[in-house]
Amino acid sequence: MAKVFLPKGTRDLMPEQMNRRLMVINTVREVFARYGFDPLETPAFERIETLTGKYGDEGEKLMFRILKRGAGGTNGEVDLALRYDLTVPLARVMAMNPGTPLPFKRSQIQPVWRADRPQRGRFREFYQCDVDTVGTDSPVADAECIAVVHDALTALGFTDFVIRVNHRQVLRALAVAIGAEDRETSMLQGIDKIDKIGRAGVENELVERGFTVDQVHRLWGYLDGEEIPGAAPYEADLNTIVGLATSMGVDPAKVRIERTLARGLDYYTGPVFETVLAGDYSGSISGGGRYDGLIGMFSGKGDVPAVGVSLGIERIFMLMEEMGLVAAARTATQVWATVFSDDTRSATLAAATALRSAGVRVQVSTRVGKLGKQFKDAASKGVPFALVCGPDEAAAG
Amino acid sequence: MAKVFLPKGTRDLMPEQMNRRLMVINTVREVFARYGFDPLETPAFERIETLTGKYGDEGEKLMFRILKRGAGGTNGEVDLALRYDLTVPLARVMAMNPGTPLPFKRSQIQPVWRADRPQRGRFREFYQCDVDTVGTDSPVADAECIAVVHDALTALGFTDFVIRVNHRQVLRALAVAIGAEDRETSMLQGIDKIDKIGRAGVENELVERGFTVDQVHRLWGYLDGEEIPGAAPYEADLNTIVGLATSMGVDPAKVRIERTLARGLDYYTGPVFETVLAGDYSGSISGGGRYDGLIGMFSGKGDVPAVGVSLGIERIFMLMEEMGLVAAARTATQVWATVFSDDTRSATLAAATALRSAGVRVQVSTRVGKLGKQFKDAASKGVPFALVCGPDEAAAG
Repeated sequence: MAKVFLPKGTRDLMPEQMNRRLMVINTVREVFARYGFDPLETPAFERIETLTGKYGDEGEKLMFRILKRGAGGTNGEVDLALRYDLTVPLARVMAMNPGTPLPFKRSQIQPVWRADRPQRGRFREFYQCDVDTVGTDSPVADAECIAVVHDALTALGFTDFVIRVNHRQVLRALAVAIGAEDRETSMLQGIDKIDKIGRAGVENELVERGFTVDQVHRLWGYLDGEEIPGAAPYEADLNTIVGLATSMGVDPAKVRIERTLARGLDYYTGPVFETVLAGDYSGSISGGGRYDGLIGMFSGKGDVPAVGVSLGIERIFMLMEEMGLVAAARTATQVWATVFSDDTRSATLAAATALRSAGVRVQVSTRVGKLGKQFKDAASKGVPFALVCGPDEAAAG
Repeated sequence: MAKVFLPKGTRDLMPEQMNRRLMVINTVREVFARYGFDPLETPAFERIETLTGKYGDEGEKLMFRILKRGAGGTNGEVDLALRYDLTVPLARVMAMNPGTPLPFKRSQIQPVWRADRPQRGRFREFYQCDVDTVGTDSPVADAECIAVVHDALTALGFTDFVIRVNHRQVLRALAVAIGAEDRETSMLQGIDKIDKIGRAGVENELVERGFTVDQVHRLWGYLDGEEIPGAAPYEADLNTIVGLATSMGVDPAKVRIERTLARGLDYYTGPVFETVLAGDYSGSISGGGRYDGLIGMFSGKGDVPAVGVSLGIERIFMLMEEMGLVAAARTATQVWATVFSDDTRSATLAAATALRSAGVRVQVSTRVGKLGKQFKDAASKGVPFALVCGPDEAAAG
């Protein structure tokens, strides 16, 4: 018989991983629901013309394209492609349902597919987890992005994290203030690298790209707290948003307005958020912001106000395991019901049934007799308790 | 801007449907876990050679095939196809994980894709929901198939259903008994049609296919209860299984051994199950049985004992709505928190936060003032309660 393999870059989610994932997903979903975000699912594939031109040349190459069924397919014609993110499908849903009451608040937790080069911990099929509020510019919606991330991470057991907040327009004002409005992207990339290569390194790079030393030093001054001309209204917005988030129960020590938050800003138009873990497990586990240009892409209605945040749920699954935030249960089964003999099987089943009615998860041994082997079965599955119902217990009921 | 469409035969699952689906899925998952079935997920696509030759010519045509990325794709080369069912992936998982402790009991609830002609209530992307026990021929495993279906349907609120049980080998003995061992399939198709066209109609068809009138009349005799030579051991097995299911708390009135259960038997080798609704909502909502030839298809180990059952979960979603078994909540939000004015917003947020801490799902209005409009917003979303926090309440805390 031929050997059989998984497709490159994919994996099976075995019971141990699935139990952990379902726990995380249910926790997160409940937090989302507490804030009025209702779940949405869209099909695994979209029409190819819905996705084309949305993800750049690089993204286009990574798309899984589906052959037409019937005659078209034999000519290599493609009419569908697998979902690449959850934002374009949301924009399509909004365009196809123009009567939806606004604001529309949805959560979406579904896999996406990208034919990236597989790496440790990176797969071609992975889950994304987004919440978005479409159709309002209320700062409550921005504050809720902070609050759901705060509450979800807290509910999952994370304690050492910071939600960084900045505003796209503050960074624009900063570029104007140092006379670099035509080189804003270079400036942002520079700011983003300070953590990695230090200010001296960034200064060299910016000068190489045509910034004057004076411009760079003015940049440091602004990043250190000098008032940025024209930024005040946007900074006031950020203070409002953080204040609202605090009213929603967000720990003020876990939110920080930071002028140095600059990454991934290409399509954001207002406030931006990024959540980083502190301590031993560093790195970003959530990002988002206000983006007013995307949702209207199919409806032809121009800008539609929208703000959302994405939880890095695959990273969270991994971290929860590494950090020991979930017991690594290989099974959800709590009790292994042993079968002493054929005569006592009914008594064992009755006991198992009573336990199940009380909400206990019971697996009945398919082996009969040889209790030692049955205990080994339970141990090999990682089941913590065993039920023994011998002839005396069976007789006693 | 160009109009945008869904792919043919697909749909978005909007919040109202999703909330219902999640409730059903969580209920069903918990029942499965109570019996020791742990969740498994496999990738959306498999290597094309894993799927080829498994579903017949008809199935092959309905598969969604994925173009190779890079140079191969431009030549129309295909290397992957979307999952067509959950059984072939299970067989692949078993072959790739030969050390898995047996019995392996898994539940799997995931979409599959088939390019069938779309019809009312039938889609090209739909969920399947399977539980299977691999690696044991214990009748406990067969009985559990009956018990999980019974418990899941009961937990969902279905009361009027019957789980029909038969045995592949009883039907084989029946074919031998009437001297039709070489025309068993015709006999099964005939039995299957009795409900639709009556015994007289079936008699005509069977005679057309070469049965003698005497054979057909002997068939009726056996179906009416005459002892079938050679069938006794298999009928004893069925009695054992039904007895075990009853020990597990299955309502005996809801299980029936029926010699006339004959449909979908192509790959079953032992007991078979089908659950039908009685009363106004007739039709099958679950089916399964013992199949010993499928799981070994990739491992080259010959027959591997396996038994499983599939819940018709898409039909269950639809029926729960039609039968009013779930409140048709357009949102999971329970309270609409109105905002009287900018001054009282913090007080509203604090009240919303307190409610959320108590487990209540609260959506805060992004509209400020004009309470009448805010009440209308709540009503249009289907939110049952509104929270009003005016200046007096805010002052009072």
